[in-house]
Amino acid sequence: MLSSLPERRNYRYDAIAFGETPLAVVLPESTADVVTAVRAARAAGVPIVGRGAASGLSGGVVPLQEGLVISFTRMTRLDIFPERREARAQAGVVTLKVTEAARPHGLVYPPDPASFRTSTIGGNLGENAGGPTCFKYGVTGDYVQALEFVDEAGEVHELTRGAYDLAGLLIGSEGTLGLITEATLRLTPPPRHVRTLMAHFAEVGQAAEAVSRAIAAGAVPSKLEFMDTACVGAVEDYLHLGLPREAGAVLLVDTDGDDLETVEAERALVETACLEAGGEVRRAATDAEGDALWRARRSVSPALGRIRPQRMNEDIVVPRSVLPEVVREIRALGDASPFPVVQFGHIGDGNLHPNILFDPRTESEEAVHHLAHQIALVAIRHGGVLSGEHGIGTMKRDFMRDAVDPESLDVLRSVKRALDPQDRLNPGKILPGELEAPHAHP
Amino acid sequence: MLSSLPERRNYRYDAIAFGETPLAVVLPESTADVVTAVRAARAAGVPIVGRGAASGLSGGVVPLQEGLVISFTRMTRLDIFPERREARAQAGVVTLKVTEAARPHGLVYPPDPASFRTSTIGGNLGENAGGPTCFKYGVTGDYVQALEFVDEAGEVHELTRGAYDLAGLLIGSEGTLGLITEATLRLTPPPRHVRTLMAHFAEVGQAAEAVSRAIAAGAVPSKLEFMDTACVGAVEDYLHLGLPREAGAVLLVDTDGDDLETVEAERALVETACLEAGGEVRRAATDAEGDALWRARRSVSPALGRIRPQRMNEDIVVPRSVLPEVVREIRALGDASPFPVVQFGHIGDGNLHPNILFDPRTESEEAVHHLAHQIALVAIRHGGVLSGEHGIGTMKRDFMRDAVDPESLDVLRSVKRALDPQDRLNPGKILPGELEAPHAHP
Repeated sequence: MLSSLPERRNYRYDAIAFGETPLAVVLPESTADVVTAVRAARAAGVPIVGRGAASGLSGGVVPLQEGLVISFTRMTRLDIFPERREARAQAGVVTLKVTEAARPHGLVYPPDPASFRTSTIGGNLGENAGGPTCFKYGVTGDYVQALEFVDEAGEVHELTRGAYDLAGLLIGSEGTLGLITEATLRLTPPPRHVRTLMAHFAEVGQAAEAVSRAIAAGAVPSKLEFMDTACVGAVEDYLHLGLPREAGAVLLVDTDGDDLETVEAERALVETACLEAGGEVRRAATDAEGDALWRARRSVSPALGRIRPQRMNEDIVVPRSVLPEVVREIRALGDASPFPVVQFGHIGDGNLHPNILFDPRTESEEAVHHLAHQIALVAIRHGGVLSGEHGIGTMKRDFMRDAVDPESLDVLRSVKRALDPQDRLNPGKILPGELEAPHAHP
Repeated sequence: MLSSLPERRNYRYDAIAFGETPLAVVLPESTADVVTAVRAARAAGVPIVGRGAASGLSGGVVPLQEGLVISFTRMTRLDIFPERREARAQAGVVTLKVTEAARPHGLVYPPDPASFRTSTIGGNLGENAGGPTCFKYGVTGDYVQALEFVDEAGEVHELTRGAYDLAGLLIGSEGTLGLITEATLRLTPPPRHVRTLMAHFAEVGQAAEAVSRAIAAGAVPSKLEFMDTACVGAVEDYLHLGLPREAGAVLLVDTDGDDLETVEAERALVETACLEAGGEVRRAATDAEGDALWRARRSVSPALGRIRPQRMNEDIVVPRSVLPEVVREIRALGDASPFPVVQFGHIGDGNLHPNILFDPRTESEEAVHHLAHQIALVAIRHGGVLSGEHGIGTMKRDFMRDAVDPESLDVLRSVKRALDPQDRLNPGKILPGELEAPHAHP
């Protein structure tokens, strides 16, 4: 247990926001330790916030009240069962470690949130994390066969997926319904071949059109990433990769599979669709060249950090058919605002990350929040949702009122009450309520 | 509304059991009609049971108390959105109709419960129905993007999948948490090519071994069905197809995809695995020959109906690695009992359907239930679960005590109470409680 102030202060923030300094931090090594901690917090009447690597992008693990933080980083037991194609991981196992341990058995764990080198399985489950490959391979929850959790009373439960899919309810609930301590994860053989293509377009509508055509022609790319002009410019300023600065939109596409001919045929479908939509195409001839093309996408975060110290990273999902209008409307909102706004995302499933760049020392967070709300409303107006893969946390909590009708919010609240009657598990997250949102990083 | 006794009596049973005759039956044509019915039932203080085609195999729609039955068979509106690859279906739409309407747009709805020609989307969602293709393509819930439901108070809610995946909780909850009135379903392009293979083995362990080897080698068959000796004998007595009566186990396997070479390569992987495990293999040379091979599997239900008028059809799921022991232990239980027991199922995901055949006029239902319980315990002892695709209903309700620890049952009960405080939605289903189980068909 950590009790000194300097140590405790390290557990009050995630990758986007600061909250209250916890009264104490516990670093359990087993489910039994978690039970002890939960019972102690219950006896003391203080709230509990569970956290993994705290790489989340929605404020999910930021404490909104003084209380106990349970950090799962020491719960790192990991067992691979090749015969059953399953892994059993404690909550603190780093995402990448699952694939590293499974690979000698010819298996991988597909979900690939951008932070997979540092994020933990518990955090991934808490936020139901996605990543570039989720268009083809699904999100974290699609790979969870079973999980163990500790409830607010300190009871331990093991759940498989089934009638009353409580496991599914816990996944993505950000520690507000129970603390996930272990999970059984489904593993799959990795594809034998990967092919990469980059295309650029004068206008974002063409990129969306190309994606729709390629999918309609039968291509199911494993990654389908989009960057707008502002995003390409930021990466180019940072790395000088020779990206097409003048392009209105850049697409990065992987096709994969076990049969090389099929993988190349799928890439050809994408290429044809891009050309027909008016794009210019560059094919990676080798895996190394493919890696080089992906470097552009992987460098978005550091590139944006050079423009402004802080960003608000949204995570909307809209029907693919309305992507061009949505990107244009958000562009217009950005242009009319004092903030640089860049857009990128997983275009295959319509998951867009509009980022508002700002400097919290000189610029108004309220104005940022207002713009973020306007962007969220664009998504909702076009039949979209607020979160594809980052979770709701505190960042999008207040927008839930726009996304979910009041009667459904009441139902969500009654489920929360059923599992956490005293509201002691990560209070203030997901559901709009009384607690104030935390501050962005200074 | 139906109120005459002969009409009402038609709504007291499903495909396996009889229950109480409802006080009244409502046939709504819209969500507004459902709201009216739910409010009327609430005012009258009577329970509500929703039902679709009533082709279920676990007693899910059998009324355990006198009350209101809401039959969704007139809610058949269906819209296809090819651009978004989605269908929006009212609860009463027959499963097959979705694919029929989507096919002109080059799309299908993959979930294929055996009853898909008569079952409804609402019923499929209620039971989270699976089918032969679910090993490769997933179960009903994997295709649900959004749903509308009416809660016990008569409020209408529209839910997408997201944080607090209440939609996921409703799927498979058999109308005990709310009445699903509409759903948005994901459509996919059908595979261009299908290849079929039948293999037979002296012993069931060899078949399980072949399946494990084929999957380990990288094959992902779209269907992977297993029939034991007793099942093969029953079908052969019925249809005289020339099936290998002496075989301990028969496998039927489809591989599918868009690239013919890959599809045939995958079938070759399966063939090699079957031969290495000691099996004999028959490849279908044409689609027509493939259909003929599948006729054996499709005829299991009528073939069993000739042996005894009634059967108790279990739906266990066990890790594939323990299938040989599980099949042998269930075989031994069947041999030691007075009842014919046959086994078949979706072996790819370890979903086995042991069937106990009996005549309720002359044989003890209690003895059948006891044997079914023994079979369920075999699954649980080997790390399995009670239901792959048929739901819990009343049939497996009492076995939930073996499958779920008491603390987790309490949590499920608290979720049920949160959404249905008066226990008026399909009371007595899924969770073990006081209401008596219904009677098997006389």
